[in-house]
Amino acid sequence: MWDNSNKLSSSPEIMEERRKHLSSTLKVFYPSNPLHIVSAKNQYMYDESGRRYLDCINNVAHVGHCHPRVVRAGAEQMSMLNTNTRFLHQNLVDYARRLTATMPEPLSVCFFVCSGSEANDLAIRLARAHTGNKQVISVEGAYHGTTTICQEISSYSKYQSDHNVYSLRVAIPDTYRGAYRNLETAGREYAREIEEKARQNQVAAFICESALSCAGQVILPRGYLSQVYRHVRQEGGVCIADEVQTGFGRMGTDFWGFQTQGVTPDIVTMAKAIGNGFPMAAVITTPEIEASVVKTGLQYFNTCGGNPVSCAVGRAVLDVIEEEGLQENALRVGGYLLEKLRQLQARYSQIGDVRGQGLFIGIELVKNPHTLEPAPEIAREVSEKLREWGVLISIDGPLDNVLKIKPPMCFKREDADLLVETLARAFGSLDSRKSFMTPLSFVNQSEILALSSEIREVWVTPNAIITPSARDAAEHAKVEFKVMN
Amino acid sequence: MWDNSNKLSSSPEIMEERRKHLSSTLKVFYPSNPLHIVSAKNQYMYDESGRRYLDCINNVAHVGHCHPRVVRAGAEQMSMLNTNTRFLHQNLVDYARRLTATMPEPLSVCFFVCSGSEANDLAIRLARAHTGNKQVISVEGAYHGTTTICQEISSYSKYQSDHNVYSLRVAIPDTYRGAYRNLETAGREYAREIEEKARQNQVAAFICESALSCAGQVILPRGYLSQVYRHVRQEGGVCIADEVQTGFGRMGTDFWGFQTQGVTPDIVTMAKAIGNGFPMAAVITTPEIEASVVKTGLQYFNTCGGNPVSCAVGRAVLDVIEEEGLQENALRVGGYLLEKLRQLQARYSQIGDVRGQGLFIGIELVKNPHTLEPAPEIAREVSEKLREWGVLISIDGPLDNVLKIKPPMCFKREDADLLVETLARAFGSLDSRKSFMTPLSFVNQSEILALSSEIREVWVTPNAIITPSARDAAEHAKVEFKVMN
Repeated sequence: MWDNSNKLSSSPEIMEERRKHLSSTLKVFYPSNPLHIVSAKNQYMYDESGRRYLDCINNVAHVGHCHPRVVRAGAEQMSMLNTNTRFLHQNLVDYARRLTATMPEPLSVCFFVCSGSEANDLAIRLARAHTGNKQVISVEGAYHGTTTICQEISSYSKYQSDHNVYSLRVAIPDTYRGAYRNLETAGREYAREIEEKARQNQVAAFICESALSCAGQVILPRGYLSQVYRHVRQEGGVCIADEVQTGFGRMGTDFWGFQTQGVTPDIVTMAKAIGNGFPMAAVITTPEIEASVVKTGLQYFNTCGGNPVSCAVGRAVLDVIEEEGLQENALRVGGYLLEKLRQLQARYSQIGDVRGQGLFIGIELVKNPHTLEPAPEIAREVSEKLREWGVLISIDGPLDNVLKIKPPMCFKREDADLLVETLARAFGSLDSRKSFMTPLSFVNQSEILALSSEIREVWVTPNAIITPSARDAAEHAKVEFKVMN
Repeated sequence: MWDNSNKLSSSPEIMEERRKHLSSTLKVFYPSNPLHIVSAKNQYMYDESGRRYLDCINNVAHVGHCHPRVVRAGAEQMSMLNTNTRFLHQNLVDYARRLTATMPEPLSVCFFVCSGSEANDLAIRLARAHTGNKQVISVEGAYHGTTTICQEISSYSKYQSDHNVYSLRVAIPDTYRGAYRNLETAGREYAREIEEKARQNQVAAFICESALSCAGQVILPRGYLSQVYRHVRQEGGVCIADEVQTGFGRMGTDFWGFQTQGVTPDIVTMAKAIGNGFPMAAVITTPEIEASVVKTGLQYFNTCGGNPVSCAVGRAVLDVIEEEGLQENALRVGGYLLEKLRQLQARYSQIGDVRGQGLFIGIELVKNPHTLEPAPEIAREVSEKLREWGVLISIDGPLDNVLKIKPPMCFKREDADLLVETLARAFGSLDSRKSFMTPLSFVNQSEILALSSEIREVWVTPNAIITPSARDAAEHAKVEFKVMN
């Protein structure tokens, strides 16, 4: 009755089926020609024709795609027992002990859940229960997950509910493009906005990735979190470190991203890397918060969270990170890659900034290194060329102009070389017409936010001043002004 | 460095470790002597001594614990590819086609997520985006998940945020204990409250399990959903069927619980059974809702939702349900079990009500079949005796007096016999002092909500009227009044 044959559909057929049965709100990579991936191993993915791609996208496949040890741990436990945490099981306590051992005191109490969204949603619940406050401070452009509450505290996603009366946003502590660019003082300067917000509101929590991923692979300025944590705690709030994309050794120098800032959060959330693709996540907090949450009578149960299979998988991931020295590898290969990318930056003016730590790296592209005019269309063109030449890289950031590099942690020096060579080839091949200085000097430079490659449109902020002479010139050159929302 | 030996800890040792590293908000079954389960197969679980238990609890292990076909499907795909839905993959579209084929038109658009909580949270987001309204109507005592929003619409859990300004509650449509008990008219009568609520508020959605699980294994009265849906839609709201515990053939007569009520929801959520323990879930909606959600600019992405492994597992579950005839089995064995339980009811006055459909069954226990005074302590004693004799059953309902039966769907006639025999033995052995009529007639009977087995305490509602003479009598009998919160 059902078609269970193993016949592989073509990409257009799959896209057609997606259109029929999946929400179109679910976007694909490379929308004009999506990738049909059928297998993956370590830091490589393979399409339906057997073509290999170097994977710089999938930080979820943390210890490498389909790592045999992780697969075996999951498969063996699935065939033995997979039930909930209302029964006692060795895996749960062993894994909780292992995981908390990676944390500084007093972070010792685990909640196991199924996704980063569930983890951040629960972290907010815990913070609210503990403090009795509701307001949550988060960073502009951040993404903390997809539940209603996670969306309320995330300004990354396009969909914003108008229900977010309890969400306060602060500036991205960006030393490349932001208001404060002095590396010595920026941490303190950016923290000041939070001091004010915390003073003026009844704040339950400050939540922040330990390095900002969706906000453009931004490394936090020195001293930022320690200043912020001090301010938030002084006003009675708790500090949540979102380690969904930064944990498990990715930053190279430390196992957890928050350690690179020398702070100890009150609540830590983790996902993605934790299960190498298996749907699992966790929240770890302090006995103090646990105690006050218990007092509120909160009971927490998660059907699949902490089941014996996820714990077996999680333990195998920790084993592999340790035994294969993946944190050290991230430090070494990441450092090498950063150096090579900075050499590349010297050659191509479109590379405005190279930043990162370990295997968490961003390349911000601009049309003009002085005005920092963002170059989202160059980012798109580079990423498409890279894909054509067998390297997968994604684009992110509030201006869609940051190339994100966050590969599986088994990424090697040769892979870094291949990536840099392919990037060099892509930048070298860019049509020169795309790297011009804008001729549209009649518009206030700082107001030009995006310029299409055909120079047909200029996007301006709602309150940009467009002089009558600029309007005339535009009319003459058949340029159209479009107002950004 | 790490202790990776396979030494099994004792139950007290595991409990000690849980106290150290897991939140105590996470409760265990049989708290005075928790079960240490090490393996499971089909409808049986095995403890650390190898002792077998008949499992009437784990509806998650829908097609049977560790079903080899499901395990193999997951293991094979894990070793081949496990990545996100931004790449094209055959499994995703095949599974979406299979799953939507079980649905009536126009339910055809899938969102894949990781848990029932994520599914219900997303369903609310979709309903709000579609209607522009915020209010959600749910049934008293219902449980719809553990995210902040799911908690707001669930009155089951003890923890209630005070943030739930958008949640409206309606009475459990309970024909045993509720306000309307006439089977012919109760559906319409209970629907009337919703008609009023929908008229007086700007309702985004009505959400309801197709048979109420946590609210006490309540089967909806005939005509309830069709009346409710009509009222809710008339006022511009959408209707969400929560099939997390009722879907995939459990009700016997139909594949989906809502079909037993002859309705077609606007949004359907599903979890648990869908992955037989693998963390996966889904939301299915109509092209109309999809279209208006797209208009709002909502983008939805879920890192692990719909990955090739979960789709392979989900497909295997559908295969097994079909090939092993598990829906028919639920109808046949469930019907047989209900009949036997009704025979048992005739023998023991504590069995106030036996209700159910397919393998979704509840036994409500009372101290007195006329006053319906609930008997939570008898439920506890019966469940503990059953466990002692090798049968696992859970307790639920707003009064903690309903024995829940929702075993794996491979439950057999012999298993039903064993369950009924063991229940008979347990009821037969009940200490007669526990099945007395309360001597505390000085307290308004209807206000007594729970009575401890030692008759030391009487729990009363905050506004219970306790007469001076009752107080004297209580003093004399050393009875203490405690006010429920």
